[in-house]
Amino acid sequence: MIKTADHLYLQVADNIEQLIEKEVMKMGEKLPSVRMLSKQQGISLTTAFQAYYHLEGKGLIESRPKSGYYIRRNMHKMLPMPDTCRPVKKASEVTVSDMVMEVFNHTANENILKFSVAAPPVGILPAAKMAKAVIHAMRQLPANGIWYEELQGNALLRGQIARLSLTWGAVYSADDIVTTSGCMDALTLCMASVTQPGDTIALESPAYYGTLQLAESLGLKVLEVPTHPVTGVDLDYLDKAIPKHKIKACLFVTNFNNPLGCCMPDTHKQALVAMIEKYDIALIEDDIYGDLYFGKQRPVSCKSFDKSGNVLLCNSFSKSLAPGYRVGWTMPGKYKDKVLRMKQHHSIACASLPHAAIGHFLEIGRYDFHLRNLRKQLHTQSLRYSQAICEYFPESTRVSRPQGGVVLWIELDDHINTFELFQQALKNKISFCPGRIFSLQNRYNNCLRISYGNPWSRQVDEGLKTLGKLIRKM
Amino acid sequence: MIKTADHLYLQVADNIEQLIEKEVMKMGEKLPSVRMLSKQQGISLTTAFQAYYHLEGKGLIESRPKSGYYIRRNMHKMLPMPDTCRPVKKASEVTVSDMVMEVFNHTANENILKFSVAAPPVGILPAAKMAKAVIHAMRQLPANGIWYEELQGNALLRGQIARLSLTWGAVYSADDIVTTSGCMDALTLCMASVTQPGDTIALESPAYYGTLQLAESLGLKVLEVPTHPVTGVDLDYLDKAIPKHKIKACLFVTNFNNPLGCCMPDTHKQALVAMIEKYDIALIEDDIYGDLYFGKQRPVSCKSFDKSGNVLLCNSFSKSLAPGYRVGWTMPGKYKDKVLRMKQHHSIACASLPHAAIGHFLEIGRYDFHLRNLRKQLHTQSLRYSQAICEYFPESTRVSRPQGGVVLWIELDDHINTFELFQQALKNKISFCPGRIFSLQNRYNNCLRISYGNPWSRQVDEGLKTLGKLIRKM
Repeated sequence: MIKTADHLYLQVADNIEQLIEKEVMKMGEKLPSVRMLSKQQGISLTTAFQAYYHLEGKGLIESRPKSGYYIRRNMHKMLPMPDTCRPVKKASEVTVSDMVMEVFNHTANENILKFSVAAPPVGILPAAKMAKAVIHAMRQLPANGIWYEELQGNALLRGQIARLSLTWGAVYSADDIVTTSGCMDALTLCMASVTQPGDTIALESPAYYGTLQLAESLGLKVLEVPTHPVTGVDLDYLDKAIPKHKIKACLFVTNFNNPLGCCMPDTHKQALVAMIEKYDIALIEDDIYGDLYFGKQRPVSCKSFDKSGNVLLCNSFSKSLAPGYRVGWTMPGKYKDKVLRMKQHHSIACASLPHAAIGHFLEIGRYDFHLRNLRKQLHTQSLRYSQAICEYFPESTRVSRPQGGVVLWIELDDHINTFELFQQALKNKISFCPGRIFSLQNRYNNCLRISYGNPWSRQVDEGLKTLGKLIRKM
Repeated sequence: MIKTADHLYLQVADNIEQLIEKEVMKMGEKLPSVRMLSKQQGISLTTAFQAYYHLEGKGLIESRPKSGYYIRRNMHKMLPMPDTCRPVKKASEVTVSDMVMEVFNHTANENILKFSVAAPPVGILPAAKMAKAVIHAMRQLPANGIWYEELQGNALLRGQIARLSLTWGAVYSADDIVTTSGCMDALTLCMASVTQPGDTIALESPAYYGTLQLAESLGLKVLEVPTHPVTGVDLDYLDKAIPKHKIKACLFVTNFNNPLGCCMPDTHKQALVAMIEKYDIALIEDDIYGDLYFGKQRPVSCKSFDKSGNVLLCNSFSKSLAPGYRVGWTMPGKYKDKVLRMKQHHSIACASLPHAAIGHFLEIGRYDFHLRNLRKQLHTQSLRYSQAICEYFPESTRVSRPQGGVVLWIELDDHINTFELFQQALKNKISFCPGRIFSLQNRYNNCLRISYGNPWSRQVDEGLKTLGKLIRKM
């Protein structure tokens, strides 16, 4: 309480009035007792009573016999005034960051058909089984998991992740792993560990807007490396670019890249690892889509060719199990100590419950079974979406053919601006990612990324049809 | 799988052998079936069988009729070799970061009496009630909480935090709040939002080592402001320092500062806010200990005097409810948009379950009751610890007298080096924080921080007695 002016009760009453106005306290709610208010605010009982008496006089609260004081009404329950038409800011240029915010502003809006979110269908995620795993974790952890977990992360989870390493062609142990709050957190910690502000890093082009923004926020310069839609980054170009631009680190999504969908062949992966060893720079490998392969076998990762420890592999369970749990991890190779310190400086530890729960889920062997169904469904969806796009979009449209992951990259006629398309689509309650946000250069204006994470439905079909119509009109 | 050499089965067997050696797979565990191994590795059934046959021959695994293959033994089950005495590295200087790592390396070791952890006693935290709140949250959240929560954070939790603002003398709404993964994450996002690498910031001196490390990792320069053990930062000094050193932001722990224990008087808080408004710079206010007051009333925060939006208040429930849940928040004032973007760039969202659980715990009104007991216990512990230190430590010792929080700041004779004391204490299975880690300058070498978070016990009594003896010997 700020006690500078007279009439303390008026100040207290005014604060409460503001809480009511801002709907922090809602109609019908009980207020603290006079005794409690006096204690909380360090005022006398008389002053507390005066404050309530004043508010009661204004009709904002009411006293109910033998029960206490309640909020009576709220000033917002009136019809809104008509809006004044807003001026158009034509001159202002939209930055990539603004565009990204605009695209994802609507994430919580359930009335919008979201082709923008590169995540698996929520309906196929094992929500109930994960809930059981959480309850199990609370029973197992000391003090039900309310205490800090160790800095490096939950040991059970790390052990299980180590076991999975066999599936992508490598052998690592729990001690090689540092857990993180999702994959983005892993990328952030790794990038901050291997670079200084002002350094230059290499990314694929087009690149996931998240890594572009991360680079921006760490004060890094970005070299966008030409990337083939099937085989990934152009290694000849990269081999010349590293010394020329003094590249300090590369960050590549090696398997089912976002947004292109490309998957580097094993020979390219091996050559890439040899190259970064030759120049002794870091490769941050984002393998977040690796488990979502449509073929017979999981693609390997660059990390499986890494003898020198220059590869920092990053991954999470957000694309396969529980995005909201924020459970990710990194194998940071020779940078482990730096990454651990960075984790301590920025967040101390991860949330213990969700990490322990996923550790348990893996331990009881449910993950592999779940992934098989998820992959089957995503593969089917990728084909249905591609067919519909083929049918509804103009003939000049080009579409990627990913062998895994959750997104399609679509190239339209040069004259079509997909950010304008996005704004029109939004009026039709459809969102997607305009191509422009996948580069710091002014390009991919005629491209868009469509996620096929939503299960096929009439609504999806209609949505793609509408998009096609909007494109044809442009 | 890397398929470059001959004898594929040997490679597979070798990988499995390494997993056994690294104890990723433990004695008695079942291996995948031959069919599963063949599928996982993309090898023929014959090759998979050959791999297991080879390992069986080495005595590492065994086949059990009608059941499958199991790990038989592990090479680590032998008595260890005697250690060779290690050489002493006298010349190497220990950096603050190394010291911090050394102090907190032992956090997981339960045999060490930890005066180093500035956290409340785990025994008094409402573990079982929080577990119930988690189960409730899983029932309430769509898809049991496995999906992403909105970027700004759980709405119920933000609403409840807004209600609490009344207790520290202000009125804010849910929309003013951004949730974070603990307080350290809030400080990181806020600091990264208001500074650029190379900027100078002002901190108290001594300052929490975590913020010193954060500043270092963001490439910031730090001005350490003289701080009074009762009233906090020297405002006259600060008023001159801001223009002189081009300070871009201040980060102060205004209530029950860590490690000094000081609590700024209201008039100082008001003057500080006026000062940062005058220079139009940011004040990041870390109020993590504010709820742990011993007096009659919670101290207000600078944020309650903030009209311009220059104050970014940061807090969490890690010192009062559930450190392992990593639930923090910030009210970033006019920097809200920047902080939101920074959150999106670095972590996308917080873990939905623990945030929803704490929201529910606050909603059912348990927090206030819990805090009252916690404060009482901490107050008692602070007095018991102070008395013991008075009794056991040399007469020349100086000790802070905090009116809240969880730590004591102790100054010993000038000639005593507390990092050496720490190393001796560790041999006696006691840890604390040496003073040196609370500054980037070479000072506070004769100081230490003792947390009174551990409930009073014979072991604590003995621990302090031992520390006293070690000091007297020096």
